[in-house]
Amino acid sequence: MSDPTLARALLAPRCVALVGASADPNKNTARPQRYLRAHGYTGTIIPINHSAKECLGEKAYASLDDAPSGIEHALVMVPGKYVLGVIEQCVRKQIPVASIYSDGFAETGEAGRRLQERLVALARAGGVRLTGPNCMGTINTHMPCALSINAVLDVDRLIRGRVGLVSQSGSVMGALLSRAQARGMGFSKLVSVGNECDLSVGEITAMLVDDADTDVILLFLETIREPALLAAAAARAHAAGKPIVVYKLGRSEVARELAASHTGAMTGSDDSANAFFHRHGMVRVDTLEAMIEAPQLMRGARPPKARRIAVLTTTGGGAATVVDNLGQLGLDVVPPTDRIVSNLAAKNIHIRKAAITDLTMAGTRKEIFSAVLAELLASAHCDAVLTVVGSSAQFHPQHAVEPIVAAMPAPKPLAAFLVPDAARSLDLLRDAGVAAFRTPESCADALAAYFNWRAAAVLPTVLVPAEAARLIAQAAGDQLNEHSACGVFGALGVPVARAQVIATPDDRVELQFPLVAKILSPDILHKTEAGGVELGLADAAQLRSAARRILERVKATHAHARIDGILVQEMKKGRAEVILGYKRDPQVGPIVVLGVGGTLAEIYRDFCVRLAPVSVAEAREMIDEVKGLATLRGYRRQPKGDIEALAQAVAAFSALAQVERPVIAEAEINPLVVGAEGEGVAAVDGLIVAAR
Amino acid sequence: MSDPTLARALLAPRCVALVGASADPNKNTARPQRYLRAHGYTGTIIPINHSAKECLGEKAYASLDDAPSGIEHALVMVPGKYVLGVIEQCVRKQIPVASIYSDGFAETGEAGRRLQERLVALARAGGVRLTGPNCMGTINTHMPCALSINAVLDVDRLIRGRVGLVSQSGSVMGALLSRAQARGMGFSKLVSVGNECDLSVGEITAMLVDDADTDVILLFLETIREPALLAAAAARAHAAGKPIVVYKLGRSEVARELAASHTGAMTGSDDSANAFFHRHGMVRVDTLEAMIEAPQLMRGARPPKARRIAVLTTTGGGAATVVDNLGQLGLDVVPPTDRIVSNLAAKNIHIRKAAITDLTMAGTRKEIFSAVLAELLASAHCDAVLTVVGSSAQFHPQHAVEPIVAAMPAPKPLAAFLVPDAARSLDLLRDAGVAAFRTPESCADALAAYFNWRAAAVLPTVLVPAEAARLIAQAAGDQLNEHSACGVFGALGVPVARAQVIATPDDRVELQFPLVAKILSPDILHKTEAGGVELGLADAAQLRSAARRILERVKATHAHARIDGILVQEMKKGRAEVILGYKRDPQVGPIVVLGVGGTLAEIYRDFCVRLAPVSVAEAREMIDEVKGLATLRGYRRQPKGDIEALAQAVAAFSALAQVERPVIAEAEINPLVVGAEGEGVAAVDGLIVAAR
Repeated sequence: MSDPTLARALLAPRCVALVGASADPNKNTARPQRYLRAHGYTGTIIPINHSAKECLGEKAYASLDDAPSGIEHALVMVPGKYVLGVIEQCVRKQIPVASIYSDGFAETGEAGRRLQERLVALARAGGVRLTGPNCMGTINTHMPCALSINAVLDVDRLIRGRVGLVSQSGSVMGALLSRAQARGMGFSKLVSVGNECDLSVGEITAMLVDDADTDVILLFLETIREPALLAAAAARAHAAGKPIVVYKLGRSEVARELAASHTGAMTGSDDSANAFFHRHGMVRVDTLEAMIEAPQLMRGARPPKARRIAVLTTTGGGAATVVDNLGQLGLDVVPPTDRIVSNLAAKNIHIRKAAITDLTMAGTRKEIFSAVLAELLASAHCDAVLTVVGSSAQFHPQHAVEPIVAAMPAPKPLAAFLVPDAARSLDLLRDAGVAAFRTPESCADALAAYFNWRAAAVLPTVLVPAEAARLIAQAAGDQLNEHSACGVFGALGVPVARAQVIATPDDRVELQFPLVAKILSPDILHKTEAGGVELGLADAAQLRSAARRILERVKATHAHARIDGILVQEMKKGRAEVILGYKRDPQVGPIVVLGVGGTLAEIYRDFCVRLAPVSVAEAREMIDEVKGLATLRGYRRQPKGDIEALAQAVAAFSALAQVERPVIAEAEINPLVVGAEGEGVAAVDGLIVAAR
Repeated sequence: MSDPTLARALLAPRCVALVGASADPNKNTARPQRYLRAHGYTGTIIPINHSAKECLGEKAYASLDDAPSGIEHALVMVPGKYVLGVIEQCVRKQIPVASIYSDGFAETGEAGRRLQERLVALARAGGVRLTGPNCMGTINTHMPCALSINAVLDVDRLIRGRVGLVSQSGSVMGALLSRAQARGMGFSKLVSVGNECDLSVGEITAMLVDDADTDVILLFLETIREPALLAAAAARAHAAGKPIVVYKLGRSEVARELAASHTGAMTGSDDSANAFFHRHGMVRVDTLEAMIEAPQLMRGARPPKARRIAVLTTTGGGAATVVDNLGQLGLDVVPPTDRIVSNLAAKNIHIRKAAITDLTMAGTRKEIFSAVLAELLASAHCDAVLTVVGSSAQFHPQHAVEPIVAAMPAPKPLAAFLVPDAARSLDLLRDAGVAAFRTPESCADALAAYFNWRAAAVLPTVLVPAEAARLIAQAAGDQLNEHSACGVFGALGVPVARAQVIATPDDRVELQFPLVAKILSPDILHKTEAGGVELGLADAAQLRSAARRILERVKATHAHARIDGILVQEMKKGRAEVILGYKRDPQVGPIVVLGVGGTLAEIYRDFCVRLAPVSVAEAREMIDEVKGLATLRGYRRQPKGDIEALAQAVAAFSALAQVERPVIAEAEINPLVVGAEGEGVAAVDGLIVAAR
């Protein structure tokens, strides 16, 4: 549980200091004081201004040191170079939370980053928690307490809502508030975290999980800074039945560069971030509009059983604008069942068994629309219902919009898209709590997000076998060659192609021909180019002469290379070759990556990323998500591959994440050959890099 | 040029008949009469009602036969089964245009399709042109003439604009009008074509090209029915400087099925439709919102020189919501040049050379924003400018929005995205003609559409060599085997692997070893499975024994197969193997498809489609668009492939589209081996299917 005292100081302080408040009401730094009062704050406001005796009618103090005690939250707006001094005062004054609007920290480069580190060290030592720097403050609509410099607070009134928002962009926090208010919707609490130097998105999310005024939590992210805290908060949110909806920048390279310069964020790959959200049961949307409507769709819902959506409309063309997007996002648009058709026929309502149920303009009548909608909502053949209303929505909400309103509360997620501009109908839907979308794209996006929702996964308990741990312990600080690495993979439980190291060409081998021979040397990186590899050796004689040729060639090209022998390995042919990778992502930690081998798969970026370790069930999901592994799934009636053995190998390999001493920095099996069903898999080559 | 008399009858009739008009103002069929009057129609309205003497104050007639003459346009609203009779009356009455609202035609299945065909035959014979059936009519805001049943016309007033719309969905026509009006924008003319049985999108587009009130043409499409007419209209639109912006459904399988049932559309592949738009210089958007704003972005513009966009913002996070999408859509977000930076520094404005120019809240002042925007618009380093305005847009348009307004007319496309809800700023931008977007996604979509815009291509004049024409003429009604097909490809100018057909194993061959031997038989489809192929034959002896084995095996598996001999071919290895396909798409006609060979490329659907024939320059573009051909472009510093030879082969192959007798139904080269730079290409296998 989050610390209630801290949560109160951050989100509902009864006494706030405005450090650097201006006495000139036209200055930006005068805004928080104006906004607090304008939006009904009844607590104590203490302006800190180095020269004015009074700010906007409130007694001002030259410094926090001079101010009365009891301050719970300081909003710091002085120029960056003075912030350290202000935080020293906060420490002396024992102010539990300071929100720093000032900029000039990690977002500006190395010097700023060092300054920020000093700030954090000072605050931590002194027991002051920080948001920012470079943040816009906190807004609580219920208390109310509008403690922010964001100009959105020039609105006449703040609408109360039951959606909490944590944003890494202060400007976007304001924009979302502004956009929600424009459609008559509000938030419970909004927090801008800026550079997030101390209080992180995860900790604040935890506070919103415990917040009685919040049902759904929205996150606007540029990066993930404290994954463990956010993961813990997500697990608690799931238990509390509060969905978390995320919009994260960084799907493109250019945006990842921007994030780095904008808030000093350390960016990892977007695929890793998705793996993180997936594991922890958070839902990601891609459109800004979906952030505003998805909470209505998700409130009180649980992850869906399947990906089936029923569509009811009065306009075929209008509905198709959403359905075309749903199709691209991989949802199953399901026709009504025979039972629904006959139930309705009994009421003299005749619908077709088409993918969407189009009542057409002629069928746009309340009793018909209501009856069909009721059947769809009651039927187990779909997991959500989308309604698309055409021209009647604009001037005649009674025909199709009122039946949607009347269907609330619905037994499953119910979304509406109104094709024309239809303000009054949107108001009716909003008041009824129906997710009503303004664009077909945001509608499809939010629905896809709902359908991609999975319960937060329980971390699989994967044990590292003692033998694997022993081998890895020996390897600290090393990069293991393919033979030693395969030894570790084998010890982890990943089947490995049978192999043997021979010292001389005449050594006997106890393997099944045909074989491969490869030079084993820490000094030869590109073995094939060095003439160090021979394939397809059919018998002992061929092996012997191949081994001689290899040694001769290598001596010629790499005279001084250390030679550890020749690796002789059984040749494996299977239904497919896959790459299995493991590394520690800078944002989210250990990840496992599954992809198809070869250049093309690399070009198409066709791989699946999950947080490591993964269970066998998760590994099966991963296999399913790699398009190119269609070749294992019976593509064009070709024989299937051994998916079960592959899933077990992926799970076993992912146990590398559990190794603590030394930590594995990176590992790869490339290729892992996947045989036909029942024939298993075999690691053929690979490497492991262990930390010291 | 379009027929001005027809255009007037369709779009600006001075006398209209409303066939099936109701005398009850609450009925749908009373709407057109109400709407015509409400929106100021000053022409003659003639209601046709089988029983009423009067409709809404207007003298009614029992049939068109009884009505006065001079009717230019009849809107037909009677039940489907009576439509044929009404069209007979139109013929008798010599009414030039009838718009049929009635449904029950091609969209309902085979019987409806036959009824529709009778309708068209009757109208064509009688000189009556039709829109619909299943259409919503025509709206002309300038005349004005609101001849439609769409309920959107319940609006108080119709805003005049300079954008024309042709829509295959009547409901979406209404929705777009409603949405544009809600933002204070209007259209010039709107036409709903429904099933498009006679007057097609292309013909109506041509009328809008000739329309003095229309600057930009919008198309909402479910399919393409008369590609030649639309292509001709597009060429004329391009010459007239009127951009055509298309939203087309059918990107997903489910939407293609819907289109079939919705308007009886024959759907081809979406890739073919894209090839059509690309060839004819039409711009496609994927979001509905972009349809409304793209005209502002495109008006008066010409296709861009390069894909470079400069971004100016007051909010890093807000701008990133657009830029992240731009990055995914493959646009180059370019930083300011040194010159811009120094020009501004001379004015004491200091900006960074980052991908986006973020002035931050602190820099949100009119003189700064204006100066930076002026530099970006004047500089040749970018082809368009995107401005993203944060919180100031909502209450303080003077800071950043007014400078955008003041920059109009801009020397290059200028887009604005306002991050908060900011109605007043949006009004200012609209009045200035700035494309101002409501969502980051529609903003990126419209910009990407602009950057994908190419001038309508001139059809390349590709001649079919006489020898190729001769070989094809011999083949009418046949599927050519790989040897004969390769003969045609060679005659077209596509290099072919050297080959020879031998009748017996002992025949001499004059080819360079190693060779491949394949059985040649019209009765054996899967040659490899039949034991009919041997690879890697190193010398004459190996060839001889391989040929014997092949004949024996084939005799065993296919005792009664006709054997045309054994095809012996030089083995080719190259940098890549590609597939080159040709077929006639049901929507857009001859297309050529280029893709990478192999199962993976098929799974990833990585190929490029263009209308055939293509010029060598277009073929180079195609090669560039196939991701998997990165292997030819120097991927990871591997040697490049012979792209020039491939481009020439693609262009030569595409000449199949020019063959008229017999028409080529389908052809494929698979694989075409592409050698290293300078080494050329070689067709190894293929087929041709010629019509009778």
